[in-house]
Amino acid sequence: MEKKNLMYSGKYFQGTREELLKRVNSVMSEKRFRHVLGVEKAAFHLAEKYGEELEKTSIAALVHDYAKEKSDDEMIALIRESAIDNKILPFGNNIWHGIAGVEVITRELAIDNEEILQAVRVHTTASSQMSLLDKIIFVADYIEENRTFPLVEEARKIAEENLDFAVKFELIHTLEHLIAQNAKIYPQTIEAYNTWVAGMK
Amino acid sequence: MEKKNLMYSGKYFQGTREELLKRVNSVMSEKRFRHVLGVEKAAFHLAEKYGEELEKTSIAALVHDYAKEKSDDEMIALIRESAIDNKILPFGNNIWHGIAGVEVITRELAIDNEEILQAVRVHTTASSQMSLLDKIIFVADYIEENRTFPLVEEARKIAEENLDFAVKFELIHTLEHLIAQNAKIYPQTIEAYNTWVAGMK
Repeated sequence: MEKKNLMYSGKYFQGTREELLKRVNSVMSEKRFRHVLGVEKAAFHLAEKYGEELEKTSIAALVHDYAKEKSDDEMIALIRESAIDNKILPFGNNIWHGIAGVEVITRELAIDNEEILQAVRVHTTASSQMSLLDKIIFVADYIEENRTFPLVEEARKIAEENLDFAVKFELIHTLEHLIAQNAKIYPQTIEAYNTWVAGMK
Repeated sequence: MEKKNLMYSGKYFQGTREELLKRVNSVMSEKRFRHVLGVEKAAFHLAEKYGEELEKTSIAALVHDYAKEKSDDEMIALIRESAIDNKILPFGNNIWHGIAGVEVITRELAIDNEEILQAVRVHTTASSQMSLLDKIIFVADYIEENRTFPLVEEARKIAEENLDFAVKFELIHTLEHLIAQNAKIYPQTIEAYNTWVAGMK
């Protein structure tokens, strides 16, 4: 199937894929938009391999970074006025754009499917509970064709073989990378690590 | 001053240092007892350097691993019957022996000084809030003379120069070590890392 012509049913987004692409393109740089298209392509591949619906996969991939280029002021105001736990405030937009990005997507794109929103919510942090769609977006974001970091080929190979192993690999190497940079680590990422890597029940 | 003859005042423990040593020796292997003496020695050095009271330092060092060789069953029963958050249960005795060890120390040794108990509580996990005594025991446990891991000489050198940098160094390399082993990470250790390494307020 030619995924570029994927027909949306209208169940999740009131418009065509082309219309959603235009909306997404309008809120980000060309470079980020290329990344988003790369995530959709990688996510389609994983969805076909592991059995996820393509329409939900497409929409989650296309909107996952929708709030990434909002200003800090706008995101902070949004977090303060919404029901989102203010504890995320010190973590910056690397964390905000998923968890609080869901608010932006709901308001500006009228997307309210909880599976899609949850995949956006956890696409950077991961979570101790992850659906198939959550895992697909989390991994696709890491391995899409524009990524060039040293371990990406190994990550791609693992994703071909076992999606849970790919989640585990990504968590380990994301944490190593954050620690090497002395960067903040979001507590939920450690819960995810304890579950998916350390096997905690 | 000859620290082996350090006189206890009776304020924190109802007995002499020799009596406490005997009690500690009776609940652990010879190897662990040597480690405990090494921690006391390193902690005395740090206490003199950074200005902590030697008596509290001695007692905290001597009792820090007091519960390390209790059986899992005994520790689990203790956690279940006490006010300790049951969320620590999946983390095993590496975590229990500090947090729940305090219960054992209070009951069996009648030590109730909160500064000493807190240093025991956080000696493995660290914490986003650490007193001078907490830092001394945390670092002394890592650098004492019986430790032989590759980075220990660097850790010792840093501890001579700046105690906070030594806490930071230990947190970074402890997390790296846990991740390399795919071992569980206690959430409070990430809070400590976010504070002492990533500079989160």
